[in-house]
Amino acid sequence: MTYSLMIHGGAGALEDLKYEAGESEFRTSLLEILAQGRQRLEAGASALDVVEFCVMLLEDNPLYNAGRGSVLNGQGQVEMDAALMNGSDLRAGGVTCIKNVKNPIAVARLVLEQGDHVLLAGEGALEFAQAAGAELRENDYFLTEARLKQLAEAQAAGRMTLDHERVKPGQSVGRAVGRALGQAGEPAIAQRPAPTEKLGTVGAVAMDRQGNLAAATSTGGLVNKRWGRVGDTPVVGAGVYADNETCAVSATGYGEQFLRTVFAKTLSDFVQFQGMSAQDAAQAAVDYLVRKVDGDGGAIVIDQAGRCGSAQSTSGLIRGWIEQGGEAVCKLG
Amino acid sequence: MTYSLMIHGGAGALEDLKYEAGESEFRTSLLEILAQGRQRLEAGASALDVVEFCVMLLEDNPLYNAGRGSVLNGQGQVEMDAALMNGSDLRAGGVTCIKNVKNPIAVARLVLEQGDHVLLAGEGALEFAQAAGAELRENDYFLTEARLKQLAEAQAAGRMTLDHERVKPGQSVGRAVGRALGQAGEPAIAQRPAPTEKLGTVGAVAMDRQGNLAAATSTGGLVNKRWGRVGDTPVVGAGVYADNETCAVSATGYGEQFLRTVFAKTLSDFVQFQGMSAQDAAQAAVDYLVRKVDGDGGAIVIDQAGRCGSAQSTSGLIRGWIEQGGEAVCKLG
Repeated sequence: MTYSLMIHGGAGALEDLKYEAGESEFRTSLLEILAQGRQRLEAGASALDVVEFCVMLLEDNPLYNAGRGSVLNGQGQVEMDAALMNGSDLRAGGVTCIKNVKNPIAVARLVLEQGDHVLLAGEGALEFAQAAGAELRENDYFLTEARLKQLAEAQAAGRMTLDHERVKPGQSVGRAVGRALGQAGEPAIAQRPAPTEKLGTVGAVAMDRQGNLAAATSTGGLVNKRWGRVGDTPVVGAGVYADNETCAVSATGYGEQFLRTVFAKTLSDFVQFQGMSAQDAAQAAVDYLVRKVDGDGGAIVIDQAGRCGSAQSTSGLIRGWIEQGGEAVCKLG
Repeated sequence: MTYSLMIHGGAGALEDLKYEAGESEFRTSLLEILAQGRQRLEAGASALDVVEFCVMLLEDNPLYNAGRGSVLNGQGQVEMDAALMNGSDLRAGGVTCIKNVKNPIAVARLVLEQGDHVLLAGEGALEFAQAAGAELRENDYFLTEARLKQLAEAQAAGRMTLDHERVKPGQSVGRAVGRALGQAGEPAIAQRPAPTEKLGTVGAVAMDRQGNLAAATSTGGLVNKRWGRVGDTPVVGAGVYADNETCAVSATGYGEQFLRTVFAKTLSDFVQFQGMSAQDAAQAAVDYLVRKVDGDGGAIVIDQAGRCGSAQSTSGLIRGWIEQGGEAVCKLG
């Protein structure tokens, strides 16, 4: 049986994605990771091993908002979320609000293998990681000059942003973070990022030569997010999902919208209940996201037939894929 | 338009449910809460207000594993999870691993109203609760003699349990908690509770006179659970879900299985894609839970037509309901 592999490095406005690092820098990085993933899949590695491996490489690259290079929360700290899922038996593992682990996705894998729990948060997750022998790093490892500047700008503007280094005057960025809490009765509107901001997350989906599917997603979350915020990334059915009977999904975007629409499971539903292909299901799920919550972001998907698909409501989605053993392809728009 | 209301106090083996508190004690408590919920719905209160109110009453009653009376984690502490969701706009709020708040569901409501985030964890969630003026309690408030004894027994037996005060020798309780972590490569089997154990959670679903749906769920989680464990309860699509186009769901059971199957969204899918009634969708979702992960637990649901339904894979599910303004009914089996 042949194999398929797809990876992503976040969604956002195309012009900004290109501005941030240059198209060629993203292409070089994606093609290198796809080549290494292909080697492993050809050698018979499991989809679960390969999605974990690819996401580790994305986490290690400060170009992406995950692992090293993660954005900073409102306290100036890196708090990371990651999860993965195995399509043959629905085993899953995730961590949220975890600090100081070099590769959150590797800790998520340890959670999956340990088997008692699916999702661990905060200090408890870090204690688990330490006991399990996960690689740790000091705070300095995660902090980059660009992220410190980005946080300072976001805080000066009194806003929470997703992942973008430049504040554009006059942008609609929703309600300020620091306003009064608990105004019961007032209809709350989920805070929206400026539409041109990059929504950083990384992810991978794969089908191995045994026909098994797996998905993995990892992120540093939102710039200036509240301490303890859990996004969609570590949540099965929101930012990640895999079931051999349907598809494997990794999502990226404004996490709260993906949690509220149970996005990754919704995408899988279009395969399960309506027999859609990966591409059609990705588009249907993004249409649903926009219709229900006016959502920003997108997803990559491989269906049970090994077909690759993706869709996004933003103009850009950094992604690359190998469909059924074919040529590696990269697209940003 | 008429209203409907349904509440639950956990799933488990029927003989154990009756043993723990006596059938009449549960019935009295459920009927009292239904009567108070009915008053509010008749007066025109929103479904969201009423599910929050009913769950607060369940949290305040030490009979149930939520709020006061929550089970203890492996460190002998109460860490609580809660979430609610509004079906008209998919707004949602949740807290996980939160300590010292009298009513986790009220903090979840503050998260929903504040609007920036959907889910907050641990110390960050507590800080939010304090800033928002939530009612706090010292540790002593939550601890009951019975829960301390239950934890001691669970730890002596080297096991993690769900919510049951008696250890039965020879029960199959899955893998011990304290074993070596991170045995990559070993196929992990999610730890199962003994089939006769009570799976404690509380929840409510409602349709108000405007035809809006809402759902709320709250729990202390698993006895002797790992510090920082996030179950299904605070996760939209797993332990709680509401969409005016389909139904409102509150689930209870072995949380990891409900996370892996995205249970509450799966139930809603049967309404959305197959046009099922509340009762048929509840049964179809429980059948799916059993088929996919051999899962233990159940759910209550009200569909967009105001019909009540429930199903469980355990022999018991403590529940009561008022369907379309009719008589209040309670069932334990």
